[in-house]
This record gives sequence, structure tokens and C-alpha cells, in this order.
Amino acid sequence: MDFIREKHKVVIIGGGFGGLQAALAFKKGLVEATLVDRRNFHLFQPLLYQVATGSLSPANIATPFRRILKRRPNIHVLMGEVMNIDVVKKLVLLKEGELSYDTLIVAAGSTHHYFGHDGWARFAPGLKTIEDATEIRKKVLTAFEKAEGVNDAEEVRTWLTFVVVGAGPTGVELAGALGEIARDALKNEFKSIDPSFLKIILVEGEARILQPYIPKLSRKAEEKLSHIGVTCRLKNLVIGVEKGALTIQEGNKTERIKTHTILWAAGIMASPLTAILSERTGATLDRFQRLAVEADLTLPGHPEIFVIGDMAALTDASSKILPSTAPVAIQEGKYVARLIQKRLDGKTIQPFSYNDKGQMVTVGRTSAVAEIGRLNLWGYPAWLLWLLVHLLQLVEFENRLLVLIQWAWSYFTRNRSAGLITGKDND
Amino acid sequence: MDFIREKHKVVIIGGGFGGLQAALAFKKGLVEATLVDRRNFHLFQPLLYQVATGSLSPANIATPFRRILKRRPNIHVLMGEVMNIDVVKKLVLLKEGELSYDTLIVAAGSTHHYFGHDGWARFAPGLKTIEDATEIRKKVLTAFEKAEGVNDAEEVRTWLTFVVVGAGPTGVELAGALGEIARDALKNEFKSIDPSFLKIILVEGEARILQPYIPKLSRKAEEKLSHIGVTCRLKNLVIGVEKGALTIQEGNKTERIKTHTILWAAGIMASPLTAILSERTGATLDRFQRLAVEADLTLPGHPEIFVIGDMAALTDASSKILPSTAPVAIQEGKYVARLIQKRLDGKTIQPFSYNDKGQMVTVGRTSAVAEIGRLNLWGYPAWLLWLLVHLLQLVEFENRLLVLIQWAWSYFTRNRSAGLITGKDND
Repeated sequence: MDFIREKHKVVIIGGGFGGLQAALAFKKGLVEATLVDRRNFHLFQPLLYQVATGSLSPANIATPFRRILKRRPNIHVLMGEVMNIDVVKKLVLLKEGELSYDTLIVAAGSTHHYFGHDGWARFAPGLKTIEDATEIRKKVLTAFEKAEGVNDAEEVRTWLTFVVVGAGPTGVELAGALGEIARDALKNEFKSIDPSFLKIILVEGEARILQPYIPKLSRKAEEKLSHIGVTCRLKNLVIGVEKGALTIQEGNKTERIKTHTILWAAGIMASPLTAILSERTGATLDRFQRLAVEADLTLPGHPEIFVIGDMAALTDASSKILPSTAPVAIQEGKYVARLIQKRLDGKTIQPFSYNDKGQMVTVGRTSAVAEIGRLNLWGYPAWLLWLLVHLLQLVEFENRLLVLIQWAWSYFTRNRSAGLITGKDND
Repeated sequence: MDFIREKHKVVIIGGGFGGLQAALAFKKGLVEATLVDRRNFHLFQPLLYQVATGSLSPANIATPFRRILKRRPNIHVLMGEVMNIDVVKKLVLLKEGELSYDTLIVAAGSTHHYFGHDGWARFAPGLKTIEDATEIRKKVLTAFEKAEGVNDAEEVRTWLTFVVVGAGPTGVELAGALGEIARDALKNEFKSIDPSFLKIILVEGEARILQPYIPKLSRKAEEKLSHIGVTCRLKNLVIGVEKGALTIQEGNKTERIKTHTILWAAGIMASPLTAILSERTGATLDRFQRLAVEADLTLPGHPEIFVIGDMAALTDASSKILPSTAPVAIQEGKYVARLIQKRLDGKTIQPFSYNDKGQMVTVGRTSAVAEIGRLNLWGYPAWLLWLLVHLLQLVEFENRLLVLIQWAWSYFTRNRSAGLITGKDND
């Protein structure tokens, strides 16, 4: 009845890969979108482990939303915390107020999963945020300082034992980077420490590392890790984490490892917002708290609510659930923005289908494994490919250039350029 | 009686400008020095305000000690906290153990001075550490996000009122940088905010800003500040700081200013270690807790204890106390290292005399004032000189290059490259 057509209001919760790509995919026109995030910046998570190990600075891998979206007059940014969602009144309830929507895109991502042992988080931090990364950086660098400062050999050994739990991509990248920095640090900076005291242990419950890859690449990666001083403890489960130690179990044999540095990369679960949405809409949750979504990424019975990225459990053609990775989230974000715009023109599009371009992970400083369709690469060539892909992906020109220089410098000199221990004391 | 001469043990407390320069000035030979610091890095404090305003990242202005001292086999680094000094047994007592010394160099610097109102620190953070800078950055950036998020005009005004207390060099640099980023942010990123709501106030008790400079340069700086939107409130004293407001007094008139962002640059006082040394040696403290030292920077009656930098109150030829600046600390650090080495050869050197090369301070993005002997510069030429001097001073090649690129980018694009709001929520 209106002669002037009102703009269609979209609210996007979360500015990770999925949410940001959705925001960027809305053309000027009929959509007015608001991106809500607790933080004021987009984080390039695949490089977060490099901040944790002191090779990059936080600002190298994070870019404020307002800068990215500067030239998008129809996309608004709001820093705020979502407390609840009213699916009947179509309202997102924030700590700071409320936002009404015509269409909602929920892309709040995931958090660490301690499998019921939330108390372990204190002693075994995971790697999801900038603060996690600087906290881990502090833990790792402090361990060397402490090892240099104490005289008791047992204590030195404890400080120089680093344990990474979980040998998925994040765990492998962390352990590899730790192996390299430890070797460099002991060679160049902490000369009074006996390098033979160093122990880096990667604990994995399965029979091989890097489960999502073909066995050959798992083997290549394990060989490389072993070469740089990382011991893989396969078929080992973590059964206890406490201050100064971790206990693992292999079969019916348990072992207590004394260490002050335990890093958690064993699993993730979806943001607690999925529980709220499940309660409000009846959508089902899987064991990682992900929401079962329709083929077009909407919630059953709610075509106006899209759930994407790590929060969605979507089954692909071969009836496997799509992994919680950046490429999946990016493609889903672009897809839902396209679908929403098509709908406004009265059209529809095909269900979402994931175009799998392959996967890759670094193993140490200049080595990686990559699986691109039927092509399998490892070692230096795989790393060059990894470098290229990640540089191209970094959101902004400036960051790309700075990161390139910082890396180049770091590889040539084997120096850490961001090895600062910052943050308040907390132990 | 010994045929083998033992190495002379020097302990340096603090790795700021004074302590680090002392460490670097010890040649290989008879001295074995240990640099103790709570942190693992040297901080280039003159650029800290650029981290606080989001132009530089912490890693750009900080370098780990171990990297700087990598090629110095006779200089050791220990991360530790000094709790006490036993001047009789010649021991530095750390939280982590103890260190014995033949000669001690105390260079632990200074901290904020709230003139008896320590409760104000919570609402009006000062700028001394990396954490201070990221905390201030968070406060400033959050203020814009909040202003964008609220509807009440009064609240928007409160969020957009920024107060800097103290118009010395740090206060002027902070206020100038705030003026520039506020203008840019409102123009490019927070388009729904009315720029006329913005207020940046620089509060100063004296009749002019930049007291250490000649009145003409104070005037030039004040004009420039006014041009970029900073109001100087001279002859105003801060009499109250509380959550959400500050009260100032001019003559017998008081005014309450509503603001969520108060930055403290009103004064510093020496590290609490001076009180310990005063008690142990009888040396006198001045009202800024600085220790009165001999002409060779030793404590009276203790030729083996040197106090340098912000902790020392040394009177120059014109009977003025040397200012708490980097150049003074650097020259003092080099001087004491030279004196200690000469003593080991049985020689002595002239008392310390400060070679004043001048002073300079930026006022906004591309403007500065500089006083070099009889030469007074202001505006763009002064800024170019400031840029040159500071780039040359940055400790390491890599940092210099990165900082240059980051600045160049930031000036050309008027973008903040490090505008991240990080850190745990605390309000």
C-alpha cells in the first residue's frame, strides 16, 4: 500500500568470516544491514597462532569493521553484546538496547570445548581471540625467562615442557611454531639453558594427527614435527589438567607430565546463542551445540533467520557435516546475502552447496601440507602456496604489506619481532 | 692475592633509557652485568602516545632486551621484580631470588603522580606502560562506539568529551593526537554522530602550556591545538575525579565536566625503590620522591651505588634540577658505565654534565614545536625534524622500517592502522 518501499532491515550477529562476507555482499539498494559484534574489529583467525608465538602483532591480523565498511553507506556497525533474540517480535536484544530486523543472520562463531572440564580452561588456554593469543604468548615467553632464572634442573625441565592438546590444524600449527621459536630462543637468547631440557609434546586422542587430511599427509606432517623437536603422543587422552601438570592416558596406562604451559586446541563448540535459538524455534542442536539448518541455511519454520559458519550443522552431498572453517563460513555468508537480495526481487536460488577448494596447514617455519582436490603437496612447495593464499586473503592492503615485511624479516633473521610479554600479572 | 682477577659484577635495575644505555656501554672485559627488569622488553616511551591513540602497535615501539643484547656475552638479562636492596651485603633481593653486586645502577624510572588522590587513577589512567596505552586506546575508541550507539544527546555529548589533565609534553601530544583522530573518525567512520558534539579539553594549572619551552612556542602550540579542536583551560586545577565526571577550579569558580574519558598527564614521581634506598643509605628525597645524588650520580657515602634517570635529582650548572627526560637518562646511563670501567683501571672522570641538545614535541598530526639551542621551530618543519630524530632513535632497524611504513600509510590515508579495542572488559 505504501508508495515508498521501506528498506529491508537485516541484522548480522557476529563479524567473523561469515558475518563480514555477508555484510560485504549486500549491494547498495533495498537492504539496510547492521553488523553487531562484541569487538570493533574483524580478526583473521587463521594467523592467530602466529601472534601466540610472537611472529606477528595483533594489529597485523585484525582490522576495525568501520574501516572495512567505510564506503558502504547501507551497512552499519554496532559494538554490542547480544543477550537474547525475540523471534516473534523480530528483535535482537542487546546489553545496550535492541535492534529490530526483517531478516536475521546469526554468525557468532564458536568457542573452546573442554568436554565438560571447564575448570581446565584456567591452566590450558585455547586460541580464539586476540587476548587468548597474547595470553599464550605471555605464557610461552615467560616460561623461557623462568627457565633461565631457576637453578633446579627439575624446575628447568618443567618450565621447558610445552604441551599442545589436540592435533587438528590449530594444534599442529601451534606445536610447529613452538618448536621453531624454542630452538631459536635457546640458540640465540637464552644461552645458559641446556637445549636437551626442551620438550614439546602434541597430545592426540586419534591414531594420527591432522584427521581431516589423507593419511600420507598426516605422516609427512608428523615427520616434519619430529624433525623440529615435537613429539606426537597419539591415542592419548587428557584425563587431568592442574596447575603445573597434565595427566594423559594411553590404553590403561596413565602418565603425569609436569609443565607450566598447556595449550588447548582439542575442540570447539558453537556460541551459546545456538541454545537460545533452539529454545525459541525448536531447532535441534548437535553435540557441538551447532544448529541443524535447512539446505538454504535458514532455521526450520523461520525463513527469516539464517545461521551460518561454526554455528550451523549443514550436511553436504556425501552426508558429512561441513567443517568449521573460514572457507565454509565465507561461502555461506556470501550465499545468504545473495539469497536475501534475490528474495526481495521475488526470486529464489538453489540450496547452498560448498565449493571445496582444499585445505592446508603449516608445519613449522617453512613447511606445510596441502590437499587441493587430488593434488597433495608437502614441505616447502606447500608452504609457498600457503603463504600466497593467506597473504591474498588478508583483508586489507596495508596489513598485507606489513605482514609480508614482518614475515620476510622474521624468516631471514630468525628473530621474533613481536615477542613482548604484556598484560597484567595473574599468577 | 688472586692471580686471576674476578669479573666486576654490576647489577642494573630497570631497562628504560638509562639502564639500557648503561648495559650497552659496558665493553667486553672486566665487567659482568645483569639487567633486571619486570618486563622482557625495552619500551620507546616517547612514542607511547601513538599507541594510545591507535596509530602504532605496541610491538612497533618495544623490543625484547634479549634481542637488543644478543651479541653481548657479558650482559645478562633477568626478568624479575626487585623487592628490596641490602646495601650492606650488597644484594638485590628479587621476588624470584637474589643477586649480589659489586656496583649497582638503579634506573627504575617513575610512575604517575596523582598528588595524594590515588583513587583518581581508576578513572583517569596515565600513560607509562604498554598496558596503559592499550587501556587508553580502548577507552577512546569505545567512547566513539558508545556515542554512535546511544540516542540521548546529553549522553552523546558526555561520550564525546575527552579531557587531558596536564599540558606538559605528554599531555600536549595526547591532546593533539586525540584532536586529529576524533576529527577523522567522525568524518569517515561514525557518520551518524554530530561533529559539533565533540569536545577535547586540555586542563593546565599554569598560565601557559608546555612550561619547559619559551613562551613563544607555547603560544604557537596553543594556536595549533585550538585549530584542531582542542580547548586549553589554563590556570585550572583538577579538584575532583569520579566515574563519569571531573571537576576543575579556576580561581574560586568550579565547574563539573561530564566525561567518560579522562587521561592523566599531570605529573610523575620516582619509583618506590627510592624510598628504600633513602632509608638504607640516608640519602634525601625531594617532593617527587627523587634521590639527591652526588655530582657523579652516586649516593652520598655509597660510591658503589648509582642512581640515574627519573629517580635522580641532579642539579645542573644553573642549579636547576635536570628534567625527567629520555636524553638525560641516556647520557647518565652512558656516563656511569664509563665511570665504572674507568674505576676498574684505577682512573676517574669528570662529574656528569648534561649536554642539552634541545627539546621537541608534536602538536597534532604533522606539526610540532622544537627548541634547539637558540633555534626555535614550529609547524611542519619542526615536525619533520621530530620525525627524523625519533626514527633514528628507535632501537632496531626492523622497528624503524615498520614504523616508517605504518606512519606513512597512516598519514596518506588518514587511517588508524592499530585501532583495536582489546583487553578484558572491566566496566
